[in-house]
Amino acid sequence: MNNKEITIIMGSQSDMPIMSDAAKVIDDFGLSYEMNIVSAHRTPEHMFSYASSAYEKGFKIIIAGAGGAAHLPGMVASLSTLPVIGVPLRSKNSLDGWDSILSILQMPTGIPVATVALNQAKNAALLAIRILAISNTKLAEQMQKFMAKQRDEVLEKSKSISKNTENNVY
Amino acid sequence: MNNKEITIIMGSQSDMPIMSDAAKVIDDFGLSYEMNIVSAHRTPEHMFSYASSAYEKGFKIIIAGAGGAAHLPGMVASLSTLPVIGVPLRSKNSLDGWDSILSILQMPTGIPVATVALNQAKNAALLAIRILAISNTKLAEQMQKFMAKQRDEVLEKSKSISKNTENNVY
Amino acid sequence: MNNKEITIIMGSQSDMPIMSDAAKVIDDFGLSYEMNIVSAHRTPEHMFSYASSAYEKGFKIIIAGAGGAAHLPGMVASLSTLPVIGVPLRSKNSLDGWDSILSILQMPTGIPVATVALNQAKNAALLAIRILAISNTKLAEQMQKFMAKQRDEVLEKSKSISKNTENNVY
Amino acid sequence: MNNKEITIIMGSQSDMPIMSDAAKVIDDFGLSYEMNIVSAHRTPEHMFSYASSAYEKGFKIIIAGAGGAAHLPGMVASLSTLPVIGVPLRSKNSLDGWDSILSILQMPTGIPVATVALNQAKNAALLAIRILAISNTKLAEQMQKFMAKQRDEVLEKSKSISKNTENNVY
Amino acid sequence: MNNKEITIIMGSQSDMPIMSDAAKVIDDFGLSYEMNIVSAHRTPEHMFSYASSAYEKGFKIIIAGAGGAAHLPGMVASLSTLPVIGVPLRSKNSLDGWDSILSILQMPTGIPVATVALNQAKNAALLAIRILAISNTKLAEQMQKFMAKQRDEVLEKSKSISKNTENNVY
Amino acid sequence: MNNKEITIIMGSQSDMPIMSDAAKVIDDFGLSYEMNIVSAHRTPEHMFSYASSAYEKGFKIIIAGAGGAAHLPGMVASLSTLPVIGVPLRSKNSLDGWDSILSILQMPTGIPVATVALNQAKNAALLAIRILAISNTKLAEQMQKFMAKQRDEVLEKSKSISKNTENNVY
Amino acid sequence: MNNKEITIIMGSQSDMPIMSDAAKVIDDFGLSYEMNIVSAHRTPEHMFSYASSAYEKGFKIIIAGAGGAAHLPGMVASLSTLPVIGVPLRSKNSLDGWDSILSILQMPTGIPVATVALNQAKNAALLAIRILAISNTKLAEQMQKFMAKQRDEVLEKSKSISKNTENNVY
Amino acid sequence: MNNKEITIIMGSQSDMPIMSDAAKVIDDFGLSYEMNIVSAHRTPEHMFSYASSAYEKGFKIIIAGAGGAAHLPGMVASLSTLPVIGVPLRSKNSLDGWDSILSILQMPTGIPVATVALNQAKNAALLAIRILAISNTKLAEQMQKFMAKQRDEVLEKSKSISKNTENNVY
Repeated sequence: MNNKEITIIMGSQSDMPIMSDAAKVIDDFGLSYEMNIVSAHRTPEHMFSYASSAYEKGFKIIIAGAGGAAHLPGMVASLSTLPVIGVPLRSKNSLDGWDSILSILQMPTGIPVATVALNQAKNAALLAIRILAISNTKLAEQMQKFMAKQRDEVLEKSKSISKNTENNVY
Repeated sequence: MNNKEITIIMGSQSDMPIMSDAAKVIDDFGLSYEMNIVSAHRTPEHMFSYASSAYEKGFKIIIAGAGGAAHLPGMVASLSTLPVIGVPLRSKNSLDGWDSILSILQMPTGIPVATVALNQAKNAALLAIRILAISNTKLAEQMQKFMAKQRDEVLEKSKSISKNTENNVY
Repeated sequence: MNNKEITIIMGSQSDMPIMSDAAKVIDDFGLSYEMNIVSAHRTPEHMFSYASSAYEKGFKIIIAGAGGAAHLPGMVASLSTLPVIGVPLRSKNSLDGWDSILSILQMPTGIPVATVALNQAKNAALLAIRILAISNTKLAEQMQKFMAKQRDEVLEKSKSISKNTENNVY
Repeated sequence: MNNKEITIIMGSQSDMPIMSDAAKVIDDFGLSYEMNIVSAHRTPEHMFSYASSAYEKGFKIIIAGAGGAAHLPGMVASLSTLPVIGVPLRSKNSLDGWDSILSILQMPTGIPVATVALNQAKNAALLAIRILAISNTKLAEQMQKFMAKQRDEVLEKSKSISKNTENNVY
Repeated sequence: MNNKEITIIMGSQSDMPIMSDAAKVIDDFGLSYEMNIVSAHRTPEHMFSYASSAYEKGFKIIIAGAGGAAHLPGMVASLSTLPVIGVPLRSKNSLDGWDSILSILQMPTGIPVATVALNQAKNAALLAIRILAISNTKLAEQMQKFMAKQRDEVLEKSKSISKNTENNVY
Repeated sequence: MNNKEITIIMGSQSDMPIMSDAAKVIDDFGLSYEMNIVSAHRTPEHMFSYASSAYEKGFKIIIAGAGGAAHLPGMVASLSTLPVIGVPLRSKNSLDGWDSILSILQMPTGIPVATVALNQAKNAALLAIRILAISNTKLAEQMQKFMAKQRDEVLEKSKSISKNTENNVY
Repeated sequence: MNNKEITIIMGSQSDMPIMSDAAKVIDDFGLSYEMNIVSAHRTPEHMFSYASSAYEKGFKIIIAGAGGAAHLPGMVASLSTLPVIGVPLRSKNSLDGWDSILSILQMPTGIPVATVALNQAKNAALLAIRILAISNTKLAEQMQKFMAKQRDEVLEKSKSISKNTENNVY
Repeated sequence: MNNKEITIIMGSQSDMPIMSDAAKVIDDFGLSYEMNIVSAHRTPEHMFSYASSAYEKGFKIIIAGAGGAAHLPGMVASLSTLPVIGVPLRSKNSLDGWDSILSILQMPTGIPVATVALNQAKNAALLAIRILAISNTKLAEQMQKFMAKQRDEVLEKSKSISKNTENNVY
């Protein structure tokens, strides 16, 4: 059994530039993860065994990104009792992302996928951290600090803009 | 090994009213079929073994109907070398059918699904028959007769309408 | 501090018929919940204090259902570190559910909402249970049993259908 | 109490290139404004106090621009009795602008947002001026001149085109 | 010159069931209005003279409802300096309301229309009242009371639901 | 050669309830027409000969209604030099009419189809009459009277509504 | 009275690059035209007088291009008995062209617009020529030649491609 | 009678860059094909004779690519008993591919088209090979090898990514 809480999987190597955003966020929060390419359509047996054994391997959350007819998140959720976070990707083959969104989001009764916004691998990681923070007070505090920090950054920018626009410098 | 050419599968019992249209057409052409509920999400292991063994069981074509985040046709196509015909269903859980269409149609490079129109289980069966007719001259003739018959029915109705509308009876 | 793990909130009383599906599922799993109407637009102060204090009250997960310009899930997520599960509703005022889906799903970087399918309050509850099961082995086993039971129900129906369709009774 | 009639707020610094169009129009009409970044999701408390106090500060109209799951205009309208003009933005995170439009436009009964076209910060400002002109005859005359001027510019261009196309110079 | 602040116009008599919602709200706030059918396409001259003279007649705001290729709000806005509130209607001829929304909302630079949600004639009236309240303190107070009342109604319903759901009566 | 100016064709008998609207309008204007079922897909040879000979038979305009993957108007336009008016139908097989609209409207360079609104067979007939009126002064006058009459009907209804709403009878 | 058969109008100078395609086609067929900018929203009076007098000036057909909330074609059709051909433009302000299409196409009963494909000013001109050819045999022959020529060009290209692909040069 | 199993047709020379993907796949599997431009709209007679004679010429499958109002696949399917695989193309004239998809996919009862994803000419070829493999064991084995090879390539990439991400090199 490993001590990695989160596994990040994606349907294709071309999904790395977006999905690595999730890895960076998890790093920032000091958690460990594993990252893999698991294609529902090109490696169905691998997907099957990977998803079926994720719980026993000690993973707590699965983040799965996919584009087009994006079956990976839903299939993984049908093979594991772990919470699955789906990231719809606007991949080269996708129809502006609409196919990715609908085929991840619209799961039937019984098998949920926690879907985040198009290409929002960062939010997938932040959702994973919120989930892990339920039973980890320190992580909950880190999330509070993260939210306070992003609040302060916006407030700082707002001040600088208000000052400039007073003088009609826009 | 069975002597049934076509297997019809669907994600839920509620898909039967539409999917049985396919069975009726296959009956009309004198072919044999098997019909099953195989849910990608609720019975993934069954779906896996069913799809993986379809070729060895002697099936030649798989017709798969599903609605919402409809992963069944694509997953089956990833597990078998047989041609898979996907029928997007406007099921109770679907978003007017758009989710069903996009999650069946937009398959990535390498794994094709032959998608037909929303709820068109009849056309799925007719497509299967066209495919089997490639190496079955008798079936090709049946398809020609079927198309001739539906042509004649339209021509007959057209005559009756032209006659009535001459007299402004509409 | 209460001992209820989950709070279910919704934007309007008219959302009850769908959102009570979530309550039933949580009941079935033997967990406790609280259910409230919290409107982002008509009771913003209440929403503010409710969301801000949810963590301190001991809740672990917030399930929020809303339709149309559905701001409740996203706003609640911006006011709490708890994981928020959003249920887009096809309410009377919604544009076939597209507005509900997009205004819940498409959250900006920093504030995630775990979105489930249109009207899928049941899946929201099942997702909440998967999340709580991370640190609750008994709950994980219950989820496994739930998934096994729904698998067996489908297999049972499939058998009955296969038998009938053998005899062309459809 | 300030003497600025209009406050322009936006969810992110990246919205400035579009939203500053509104500022320019207001400048042209000789009115004063304040411009700020107020994020519904990253600075909810600030948004709350900002919106709640806008009336007392003497503002008459709030122009709010946002993209993606754009909750800012609607939330501000729920916290103030002032008319709120919403500008849906085709931001980097938005789904071609459809999410921005629907999450601003489709407000429930009780809380209206005056929505303008995608990225039309200019029209938001012109709408604000029409509103202020109700009780300001001089402003109404300015609007008439503005409309007359844009009419004359089109008529001028039309003449030049008609002349050229007479000679088939296109 | 009349003393009616608001004129409500609509493209067809069949729009009355929805558009009369606006009249009721205006009545409730003690304001006066005029209601007329003005079709951009079937009575263009009437629409022209009506819109062109609205300012001189003393109207302060125009509420215009239309469905399908809904040109009425935009054309009226091009003929008057008054603020125009557009109500997209899901009329019999409309494409689920999408055509109504887009042809009212997407006005070009120079001519704004304040668009509200599909069929939201009530919100059109509430927006008109917010606008008139800018220079009418009593009306601003009425709007505050209206918002407080709808808040209290929601809070009341919420209490009753929480109580019942405590006992699992849903 | 016949003396009928207009031929109305449609893909299926089930299109009659809508398409007969066109016939009634043409009757009202005292013109003659022929009505037929011509299916691009079920009677392609008939469609071919019908379209190819329409000009020689003396027809001046073809009105073609179809739903779903609606190929009839475009194919007829590719086989005749006559102007073809396409009526997209929200037929039982169509995807809320979107497929009908796009497959009739989006013709490639070289082969135009004059598309009217969804289910607007009446407008197809009125367009045909406008076209024939180019070289028929009497018909142009009839069209002017028709437009005047529908204007007067709207004005009449408007008067009655204004009167009633004065007294708040809505 | 002029001897120009066709008038081409458009809402903005920026529409010229597309709309001049129509002019070129009309030139190629040896017909005369007039081209003007007529904005429904910025020059409503000009649009009114232009459309109202088009018939008396001797024009036979109006081609009107517009983007976004594209009211020009429909308004012109409501002010003239002439056939109006609408060209939806994917202008800078349009929502990928969907707003342009729906606000031109979805005209209500009584006022038809002959809509062509997005940006298809060429097809608008070809439709105008088909219409004028009804009472002009020479023009009908020209259209036949045009269609024969474009057929031959395709056949020529097809031959060259077939030859190359025989040798697998693709 | 030729010995080519597959004919690849497309509506325009500009479709070659995508459609030649199909040719390459067929080459890779050692099958023979013919490639032609056959435009439903610009060469309807050629399309008619080509489709009508495809069976007699010995072809077994028709792959047809088209964009916009894409009538080619459906018309060819109405003129031949062969299975037709339709490839919707995001051509210059298409509305982001939505028109191409809907006008190929949504065929009426009686005439099926096997539709693949937008621009997926490769999958059209792979589907054709699956179909031919029904009666060709060697081809079925080749397909198995192809699927195994693409599986191994993904597994290989996955290993390399897992290794790198262990060390946080992303």
